[in-house]
Amino acid sequence: MAEQDVYDKLVDLARRRGFFWPSYEIYGGLTGFYDIGPYGFAIKKKIIEAWRKFFIFNHQDYVVEIETPAIAPSIVFEASGHVENFTDPVVRCTKCGRIYRADHLLEEALGINAEGLSPAELTAKIRENGVKCPICGGELSDVTTFNLLFKTQIGPYEGSIGYIRPELAQGMFTSFKRVLEAVRGRLPLGIAQVGRVGRNEISPRQGMIRLRDFTIMEMEFFFNPESQECPGIEKYMDYRLRVRRYEERLRGEEPKEYTVRELIERKIVIHACMAYWMVIGHQFIRYLGVSDDETFFEEKGPHEKAHYAAQVFDQLVRMSRWGWVEVAGYAYRGDYDLSRHAKYSGQDLQVFIPYREPMTVRVKRVLVDKAYVGRTFKGKANEVLRAVASLDPAQVEEQLASNGNVMVGDIELPASAVKVVEEEQKVSGVKVMPHVVEPSFGTDRLLYMVLEKAYREKEGRVIMSIPRYLAPIDAVVLPLMEDDERLRKEAAKLRDLLVSNGFTVVLDDTGSIGRRYARADELGVPAALTVDYRTLEDHTVTLRDRDTWRQVRIREEEAPEALRKFIYNLVDIGKLGPEVKAPEGEGS
Amino acid sequence: MAEQDVYDKLVDLARRRGFFWPSYEIYGGLTGFYDIGPYGFAIKKKIIEAWRKFFIFNHQDYVVEIETPAIAPSIVFEASGHVENFTDPVVRCTKCGRIYRADHLLEEALGINAEGLSPAELTAKIRENGVKCPICGGELSDVTTFNLLFKTQIGPYEGSIGYIRPELAQGMFTSFKRVLEAVRGRLPLGIAQVGRVGRNEISPRQGMIRLRDFTIMEMEFFFNPESQECPGIEKYMDYRLRVRRYEERLRGEEPKEYTVRELIERKIVIHACMAYWMVIGHQFIRYLGVSDDETFFEEKGPHEKAHYAAQVFDQLVRMSRWGWVEVAGYAYRGDYDLSRHAKYSGQDLQVFIPYREPMTVRVKRVLVDKAYVGRTFKGKANEVLRAVASLDPAQVEEQLASNGNVMVGDIELPASAVKVVEEEQKVSGVKVMPHVVEPSFGTDRLLYMVLEKAYREKEGRVIMSIPRYLAPIDAVVLPLMEDDERLRKEAAKLRDLLVSNGFTVVLDDTGSIGRRYARADELGVPAALTVDYRTLEDHTVTLRDRDTWRQVRIREEEAPEALRKFIYNLVDIGKLGPEVKAPEGEGS
Repeated sequence: MAEQDVYDKLVDLARRRGFFWPSYEIYGGLTGFYDIGPYGFAIKKKIIEAWRKFFIFNHQDYVVEIETPAIAPSIVFEASGHVENFTDPVVRCTKCGRIYRADHLLEEALGINAEGLSPAELTAKIRENGVKCPICGGELSDVTTFNLLFKTQIGPYEGSIGYIRPELAQGMFTSFKRVLEAVRGRLPLGIAQVGRVGRNEISPRQGMIRLRDFTIMEMEFFFNPESQECPGIEKYMDYRLRVRRYEERLRGEEPKEYTVRELIERKIVIHACMAYWMVIGHQFIRYLGVSDDETFFEEKGPHEKAHYAAQVFDQLVRMSRWGWVEVAGYAYRGDYDLSRHAKYSGQDLQVFIPYREPMTVRVKRVLVDKAYVGRTFKGKANEVLRAVASLDPAQVEEQLASNGNVMVGDIELPASAVKVVEEEQKVSGVKVMPHVVEPSFGTDRLLYMVLEKAYREKEGRVIMSIPRYLAPIDAVVLPLMEDDERLRKEAAKLRDLLVSNGFTVVLDDTGSIGRRYARADELGVPAALTVDYRTLEDHTVTLRDRDTWRQVRIREEEAPEALRKFIYNLVDIGKLGPEVKAPEGEGS
Repeated sequence: MAEQDVYDKLVDLARRRGFFWPSYEIYGGLTGFYDIGPYGFAIKKKIIEAWRKFFIFNHQDYVVEIETPAIAPSIVFEASGHVENFTDPVVRCTKCGRIYRADHLLEEALGINAEGLSPAELTAKIRENGVKCPICGGELSDVTTFNLLFKTQIGPYEGSIGYIRPELAQGMFTSFKRVLEAVRGRLPLGIAQVGRVGRNEISPRQGMIRLRDFTIMEMEFFFNPESQECPGIEKYMDYRLRVRRYEERLRGEEPKEYTVRELIERKIVIHACMAYWMVIGHQFIRYLGVSDDETFFEEKGPHEKAHYAAQVFDQLVRMSRWGWVEVAGYAYRGDYDLSRHAKYSGQDLQVFIPYREPMTVRVKRVLVDKAYVGRTFKGKANEVLRAVASLDPAQVEEQLASNGNVMVGDIELPASAVKVVEEEQKVSGVKVMPHVVEPSFGTDRLLYMVLEKAYREKEGRVIMSIPRYLAPIDAVVLPLMEDDERLRKEAAKLRDLLVSNGFTVVLDDTGSIGRRYARADELGVPAALTVDYRTLEDHTVTLRDRDTWRQVRIREEEAPEALRKFIYNLVDIGKLGPEVKAPEGEGS
């Protein structure tokens, strides 16, 4: 098949067989919104569970999952910088009123890369090149910005603005201290979340790839920035990742393979924790069915990064129509978010890091002649003493040296009444503002990716070779003939046995056996169990592999265990039972 | 303990130990928004999985799960009736500007039940009784309505209104035909969903019980209204449910026990499917730790029901501060939603129900004298013929009988040119608009419920007796002494063994063993496994039961299997190994 067709074929299949389709179809649809159908959702659920295993369960000593609301008051997104920075440039046609994303319009009209240009720069390019409305030819307005936050009102009072979260992160930042205290009180701490977010894209046009309302899986990994260590990294120092740095991309170079050791030692990543979570993300993507040559990490350039990030690597996967698509981002958010929330809320969000042993340090302290203060200021004496106590010793020394006195507000204290002494003090630790590395995945893109990677054609039929453990249904049970009540009864018994063992099973008894195999292949069902006349005699059934169409004969009562081994690829199908020829009409 | 204290104690514990707390605390909080912390979320996830098992997995032949967006264009909620009806009455103080929910204000000021009164009736009550602003004493405005939908704008065009869904249901209704075709093409069909919804409550004041942004678990069960059957109901005909009908409540009567047979035969429920899902919901709530005397089903009265429902039963559970709290609703939505969407979208949302055998029916048909029409109307003849074809035969017969002619628009056809004939026709089925029963659960309320039902005090300590299979952590592993590296290493090995078997485990090695037991009890961890000096010799550890503080000695290598049996209550703890005396200081 021609590669450019896979997208269209898959979208058609997805709609017909219940993987996904545009939402609100009966009203003509709405770009940027997709429904995930029953079989798509079954896969999506397994993708989420796999992500939880890789990112949370396997790190359960220091990674936890929480859930925070989808709506937040405006102060949260003012602090996070989204009210100011989460924008795209837009331009409006002064004749027909249509609105375009300005950089995309310029890219289409002039074939240039306009990402990251300012509104003024974009306006200049439009004027210089005489770019007009592509639909009606009208004059375009100056370029302005459009904020991508969905805005709403919380409660009955006008002016009480809220926004739908465009990422999950702020839920973790605003609750960070509470979570830290509840779970271990020390770093590192990963706070993960899976949830829906909203991004009010101007005109999304890439199907499931760019949605306005979608699921992300995100972790904020908080650590002590004064250490370069990352727990678990030692296991992966020789692990190889394909990476393309920003300058390499500018020079048109291909991604290169680096060991984790190289990424850290050559400071290609800001911190070892970036490399660590990229390794976990690489393993996760591989588990979803992507081969190593179809994915790499790409560093974003200065104008491409989100406002909060000091460094970002996108994890790209090659897809048929869209080329290299970002399925995850790894952002070094540093202390940007916590510091901003500390500032906007007035709360101390630092973490106390105890030293292994208390340390002795020399500290300066301001001493004041209390008798002098009492005599001189009488009723105000206590107030003056408190004010002196809050002075910075270094500044007091400086004032004494240069002026010969010390000002406390508008009160003057002579040099004779104040001195600075140095003392030894025991300190047991230090307060730090944690830094954060954030791996963040778009779940619906991953679902699309899994389906596209699984798409095959064989003898004119479609086979969805979804990794067996991600398939929407574990097995179909098929009575060989359509209208035989004895076969149907036996098949229902087998179905019940499998369901009682936790499998998702469909009993399909309509149409020829070949058509039923084809239906199951198209849905990605890994195993077909066929009940035939021999089953009625010896209680064996055939187990057929979706991908190879090989068939083996297994005992009915052993079907749950055989299916488990088959789905988790624990043994080759040939080990499950004697191989049999496929029945007539199967063509294999 | 005094019962009225449980709420406060639990809220304090929840905040301290990471079950839940008010969102955006660092900004002073915002009523109606809660964060679910790591241990709360671990339980919530298990509640959702349990719901999926009871409602979806166990009915996998005809119930599927989908996922639809949280934001919908306004047409969807115009069709659903929410733009018009999803409102609460509000009143504003003309002096201080405060806004109140009018019925609640009247209930507090006058002690009357004002639910369901119209704005005009509420205004009249305010005026009659001279009710004033409870804060500043100012005059109150007339009562108006406030729409509880969170409103937003989709895309860059002003006027493109969208709303956050207040329920999941409309996602299932707008995609119903697509799902039906994808999965089986026939009724019954349950479409389930778990997801966040938003309700812009005027002033929510009941903590986790009334949120503005929360998770619901909902199923729309579509069935053929021409049949009274419900699949699976025969198993439950003698199942007993406690129910209070609306009139019984008005008469001050207590709930009564009915069998499902009685509910159906005495038409207490509109349809057998209502009773069926109430049974499943009852089993589900029992699984979450609620005893039968703490829950019943209450029928809503005419003014209490949502606008789309012909009948609603609330499933109530008794809680400490709030009394009987609704944790689920069972609504008979009939064909309200599908009919409305059919009307607003112009799409045919009916389902074709095939007869077992084609039936012969007599149908009337309008015949017209084509030659006459051709002669008379010439170029317009085809148009006239088409118009005649769309006439209702019964109306044509009536016109012929009363007027002796037939009007087609403004064209008159004489009796000689038109006649109505009756013919036999084979029909293979009939189109029906499915009816819908909807069970809908508030997940965060269920989480609160599970925690409250689990709250115990024993010897001055708190024990969260959460059903073991719902506990946030499966086991703690405790090295007996705090600072012994050999014990710690052995404990780490045991922890790793349990984790590799799929358990969530915490290794706690700080503080006295008694304090560590207490910490685990407070978090609801069902099993504590203690590694002591005997472990180093014979590789046995103690397994301690959170609820009884009984301890048995088990072999380390058998810990995963013992823990599995313990958590799923498969055997009494005494069967897992020889019982041992609790160590000193445990107090048990």
